[in-house]
Amino acid sequence: MDYLIPPDLLGIVAGTFTTISFLPQLLKTWNTKSAKDVSLGMFILFIGGVILWCAYGFEIHSSPVIIANMVTLIIASMILTMKLYFENSN
Amino acid sequence: MDYLIPPDLLGIVAGTFTTISFLPQLLKTWNTKSAKDVSLGMFILFIGGVILWCAYGFEIHSSPVIIANMVTLIIASMILTMKLYFENSN
Repeated sequence: MDYLIPPDLLGIVAGTFTTISFLPQLLKTWNTKSAKDVSLGMFILFIGGVILWCAYGFEIHSSPVIIANMVTLIIASMILTMKLYFENSN
Repeated sequence: MDYLIPPDLLGIVAGTFTTISFLPQLLKTWNTKSAKDVSLGMFILFIGGVILWCAYGFEIHSSPVIIANMVTLIIASMILTMKLYFENSN
């Protein structure tokens, strides 16, 4: 079956978007030293889900799913850490 | 190959986590009528990425990837709309 964009390439582009999307939030939180409006519950559930997506990626042998979720896990964990740190230091 | 958890079930659980993770943010933004600390760039890039993940899900025939990303797309779009609305009405 022919695809307009090969699945692996599409997965890599999709993963790049959802992964780098957390960078503006990371920078914003770092610059403003505030993440009051960012939901704690969101980041806890999201990080749990991203860990499960990594496991799913290993099971279906999808490199884009594994790599994108591993990088997202690192960035989302940094945002969560900053949110907790800034809230406790204010 | 045997898995501890079948891939489709794992994908559904992972998708449920990352999808429902946006609900606390949706409720928080609705209740506080503020999403000042939530990055606009994050939601724009994230929504773009989620649309691409849907396309990837169709190409690899992965129902969990398709369904999770479609629901996430709806919720993330609602958060983005609220953020823009509250910022322009304040």
